[in-house]
Amino acid sequence: MTNPPPAPVDLDALRASVTRQGALVRELKQNGAPAEQVKAAVDELKKLKIQLDTEVAKQGPEDDGLSKNDKKALDDLLIRKMFVVPSFEIYGGIGGFYDFGPPACALKANLLRAWRRHFVFEDKLLEVECTNLMPEVVLKTSGHVDRFTDLMVKCTKSGECYRADKLLEDHVENLLAKSPNLSEEEQEKHRMNATMAESFSPEEIHKVFQEYGIKAPGSGADLSFPIPFNLMFQCQIGPEGNLIGYLRPETAQGIFLNFRRLLEYNAGKLPFGCAQIGNAFRNEISPRNGLLRVREFQQAEIEYFVNPKDKSHPKFSAVASLELSLLTKTNQLTDGKTVKMTCADAVAKGIISNESLAYYLARTYLFCEKIGVDLKRLRFRQHLDTEKSHYATDCWDLEIKLSSGWVECAGHADRSCYDLTVHSKKSKVEMVGTHKFDTPEKRKIVEIKPNKGKMGRAFKADAATINEMLESLKEDMDRALAFENELATKGEAVLGPNCDGKQFTLTREMLSIQVLEKMVSEEKYIPSVIEPSFGIGRILTAIFEHNFYAREGDEKRGVMSFAPIIAPIKVAVLPLSNNAAFDPFVAELETLFAEDDIECKVDTSSVAIGRKYARADELGIPFDVTIDFETVETRSVTLRERDSCAQVRIPIDAISVEVRKLVKGTASWQDILQRYPVVAATAEQ
Amino acid sequence: MTNPPPAPVDLDALRASVTRQGALVRELKQNGAPAEQVKAAVDELKKLKIQLDTEVAKQGPEDDGLSKNDKKALDDLLIRKMFVVPSFEIYGGIGGFYDFGPPACALKANLLRAWRRHFVFEDKLLEVECTNLMPEVVLKTSGHVDRFTDLMVKCTKSGECYRADKLLEDHVENLLAKSPNLSEEEQEKHRMNATMAESFSPEEIHKVFQEYGIKAPGSGADLSFPIPFNLMFQCQIGPEGNLIGYLRPETAQGIFLNFRRLLEYNAGKLPFGCAQIGNAFRNEISPRNGLLRVREFQQAEIEYFVNPKDKSHPKFSAVASLELSLLTKTNQLTDGKTVKMTCADAVAKGIISNESLAYYLARTYLFCEKIGVDLKRLRFRQHLDTEKSHYATDCWDLEIKLSSGWVECAGHADRSCYDLTVHSKKSKVEMVGTHKFDTPEKRKIVEIKPNKGKMGRAFKADAATINEMLESLKEDMDRALAFENELATKGEAVLGPNCDGKQFTLTREMLSIQVLEKMVSEEKYIPSVIEPSFGIGRILTAIFEHNFYAREGDEKRGVMSFAPIIAPIKVAVLPLSNNAAFDPFVAELETLFAEDDIECKVDTSSVAIGRKYARADELGIPFDVTIDFETVETRSVTLRERDSCAQVRIPIDAISVEVRKLVKGTASWQDILQRYPVVAATAEQ
Repeated sequence: MTNPPPAPVDLDALRASVTRQGALVRELKQNGAPAEQVKAAVDELKKLKIQLDTEVAKQGPEDDGLSKNDKKALDDLLIRKMFVVPSFEIYGGIGGFYDFGPPACALKANLLRAWRRHFVFEDKLLEVECTNLMPEVVLKTSGHVDRFTDLMVKCTKSGECYRADKLLEDHVENLLAKSPNLSEEEQEKHRMNATMAESFSPEEIHKVFQEYGIKAPGSGADLSFPIPFNLMFQCQIGPEGNLIGYLRPETAQGIFLNFRRLLEYNAGKLPFGCAQIGNAFRNEISPRNGLLRVREFQQAEIEYFVNPKDKSHPKFSAVASLELSLLTKTNQLTDGKTVKMTCADAVAKGIISNESLAYYLARTYLFCEKIGVDLKRLRFRQHLDTEKSHYATDCWDLEIKLSSGWVECAGHADRSCYDLTVHSKKSKVEMVGTHKFDTPEKRKIVEIKPNKGKMGRAFKADAATINEMLESLKEDMDRALAFENELATKGEAVLGPNCDGKQFTLTREMLSIQVLEKMVSEEKYIPSVIEPSFGIGRILTAIFEHNFYAREGDEKRGVMSFAPIIAPIKVAVLPLSNNAAFDPFVAELETLFAEDDIECKVDTSSVAIGRKYARADELGIPFDVTIDFETVETRSVTLRERDSCAQVRIPIDAISVEVRKLVKGTASWQDILQRYPVVAATAEQ
Repeated sequence: MTNPPPAPVDLDALRASVTRQGALVRELKQNGAPAEQVKAAVDELKKLKIQLDTEVAKQGPEDDGLSKNDKKALDDLLIRKMFVVPSFEIYGGIGGFYDFGPPACALKANLLRAWRRHFVFEDKLLEVECTNLMPEVVLKTSGHVDRFTDLMVKCTKSGECYRADKLLEDHVENLLAKSPNLSEEEQEKHRMNATMAESFSPEEIHKVFQEYGIKAPGSGADLSFPIPFNLMFQCQIGPEGNLIGYLRPETAQGIFLNFRRLLEYNAGKLPFGCAQIGNAFRNEISPRNGLLRVREFQQAEIEYFVNPKDKSHPKFSAVASLELSLLTKTNQLTDGKTVKMTCADAVAKGIISNESLAYYLARTYLFCEKIGVDLKRLRFRQHLDTEKSHYATDCWDLEIKLSSGWVECAGHADRSCYDLTVHSKKSKVEMVGTHKFDTPEKRKIVEIKPNKGKMGRAFKADAATINEMLESLKEDMDRALAFENELATKGEAVLGPNCDGKQFTLTREMLSIQVLEKMVSEEKYIPSVIEPSFGIGRILTAIFEHNFYAREGDEKRGVMSFAPIIAPIKVAVLPLSNNAAFDPFVAELETLFAEDDIECKVDTSSVAIGRKYARADELGIPFDVTIDFETVETRSVTLRERDSCAQVRIPIDAISVEVRKLVKGTASWQDILQRYPVVAATAEQ
């Protein structure tokens, strides 16, 4: 009797330790902690990383649902069947640009229709379509002109540019591969540099580049000092050359700009949601990974505007009992486990910060189910406090497991009132909602009574500035009372400085301040924004990977098992051979399906029926109708289901109705099997 | 008894004379005719213009179907109901950019769905989606980098830019308005300059600017010499700054680039069509006229690839007897009449140059009918020979009459093989179709037998160039025979020069050329392209203008009479008042319509029912369902048709089915009137 094998080390827990330690390192650095303290934390991080790498190597790769061979077969199929092809291919192509061919174009149209149906139609969102080009003021105000950057180094000889973090990672990988005899400690040091690459400052990464003596990969020449490169495409609007424009890096901004008109369209009522489907553009320094990191891509975004004091959702009860896989920020820093929890529990326990955010996580989950994403390879990961955007109060990514690992395919951020606030301030256009009380409420109000004559004479042109400063004093009761107190005791008080650095000494005679109690019937507020944001190319990638399989047989044949509602073509019409007797039936079936708005594809080529099925399977056509000699005699056809390959015989007069039900999901294949005679499958060769 | 009034002068005929004379002037100029001949033709043109202006003034403006008041009311409605609003409005907006709000967004989605259904689905076109950004090589090859320009002048003081032709037109208009005492001859001269503005060369328009002393409108400073301004938005792709990109000025190019893969997807078979819906961008110097001339817009284009020797269309018989309103190039130069003619006749008489082009004119006509364009305000105008693009062999614009005149809303061009030829040449990728003969045919073939050893020794590195030149010699039998003749008689002959200017002397020993008769079974060709191209913003403008009317009443109320298939919302659910007894019926109806995928809008506000109808009419909702006290008693509602305001009473259990039929067009309102009791209309106040 042998001993049982030792329990494998828990990879989740180990991964969580790495995450936790990484967060600590970032925090220490952000807070400017002493060097030795940072070093100690970094050393600990190194150790954990190595331990994790070793364990992963020992336990073998996790199942990603798609073998390397299958991934290769899928990539081949995607190009060969013109799902996705490189743009400008005849001129050699350019990284980060892809064209969608006929099957992917239809798939995407169906996916977007499903998205509109699920999010816009069912929840009565307002949909808008704004421009791709935007003037600088919009993106300067939103923060993109200053902050939407990656670190870049430039070859001093050829001028070629590289993303600094990627170059460092590649360098370390090569170094380790070429130097098998390095001590473990040396290896650790190198790996650590690669791990930290993305979070280095320009100075830090420059120092590491110097230490390694990293040169430009092409020419071997020196590299420039790393500089932040803005990822937005810039151009000139109009002929003068003085109006800078950018291609939008996200569709969200167009919605914020239209907030006031949208609120009016919605009869002044909040909460409401607004959606936009459209392109976004990012001038990636190093595009890669097919549709995952491209320079031009499609987003589908929702901005749900709510009262920051009441983020409940009117339809939350409909999703309250739905269970989601959550990787909380706490768990990422403790045991690394993904937990299953109902939306109601997650909100009650304060894990998801409010109902509206939880509602949209649930809706996203249900959408993924509809479009055929494998729900076992899906989770919602909460952003750590150290990784969130400065304006976000809570943020959950929809992560889908692909062959390249867990990939963010949609974000769900509570952006608070950041965007409306900055645009309102810059444009001087009020963007507020009004909360009307059921009954008037008593409120303390700061009232300022100025002596306009005295003020005007004393300050002349500055009077307007002073008025603005007094308005903002009203908003801060404590400061207002302190100001009044100073006026009362000293006879004068200093107002300001404001953001321009201006300040003014006001005297007792010029104004008085008091706090009154007033009955008010409403309250204005700048709405918070809950933002679900989908990357359509990434969702498509998930659909491709989760729905591709190779059917066992003489030769492994690729099958795309798209859900019928998003399948590019719903039914194939396949005559058994090119016998002329079949022709009228082909025409009749085509007409039948066309009248019922069912996309069909006819294959009248002379290849064997098995080959025709294989072709249809590659395009993900869920149902095949075969015309054979029995059709000529009895006006019946066979109907084949793509994944089971099972076939039934159905009268032509019923075929279009039955296929329509199958496609809409109002009938299942099981129903069909019970209601029509099952036939032996035609040899699939 | 008085004499009958004189018959009015035929405006069409007069207009045709102007067109004819204009074409003559252009032709003379293009051919470099003597100055006095041009002047005589220009003088005649001036006379005709004045005669036309006088007659138009005498006979009054033609009916454009939309009064000035209605146009103002429509423009107001479009903004107020958030159909179309200026982009970046809170920052003051920028000319030529518009956002689509919720109703126009839904209208456009329905319009595009109808377009896809009509063109892509019914004719089994291949749809693609290519990128908006394209590298310079694509648009240089297509000719856009060199030729996609307008003439521009720049203020030497402020740097502000103006479209030269528009500035000249404005100047003349002002001049005439300010100078009522000018002699008729002087007036003629000025008007002529405005008329010719668009066709002047930089030198010509500069001379006219000098004569008038035209200065910059803002500053009064001097203007620069007119320069061609390229209308494409330029930007850098990638971080290096050496890869110039442009936002595409048309969607067509992406299709041409993918031709080879598309042909493969279509199993090598021709003819086939490919469609693309997407954005295009043009940096207009002076954007204006709402959606008619914008900087960012949507196109829906088809490229139908055919054998240049056989441009028949397999489905032509389906449209052969359809009558179209054609304004032929001949008629534009003779009597100016639009004629009605069947497609069959137009092709048989050589008026429309081939079946494929005629087929698409017909399909466009049928599409316009479906989406509610007024067919009486629609015509197809053929391009004059002098106005066609250099590559087009025949071109017909769909022109729709709007308040601003006849506007081109779609083009139908036979682009011949221009695009595939230039891209193929530049990329060195073969783009050809194959015509397989039914039986092998006898063809004369040029055969060249080189002595490779001798050639190689004599020309070394140039041997490859010589081979290429010999290959092209094969294509030209006459030249090949002449070359062989020279070799035979002189012992040597000069090959070239080729496009690089290279030429080579070959001798008898190096090669022999003969013409053979061979049986060939196929023939390769570069396909011709028939291109229907729709401007979606312009089609939308036509839909707005042709479907808006003001309903007579106490106050004139705007109604959008959208065709049900494209109406943004199909049905309004309107409780008679906010009596709580109506609430469950509102919820029930909402669910019923949602289950049937019918977009509905509920109005539970406390305004009178007449006001609710008016709101629904403004959004173009074709059907209104009203819940009243009888509903509570009998579970029946009233159904109101938007344009007639007629109402019937229908059981709730039948309402969704009936509305669905009305929206799909499988039942008419007349059917409903016959099958359900008509009720007196609720007071519409």
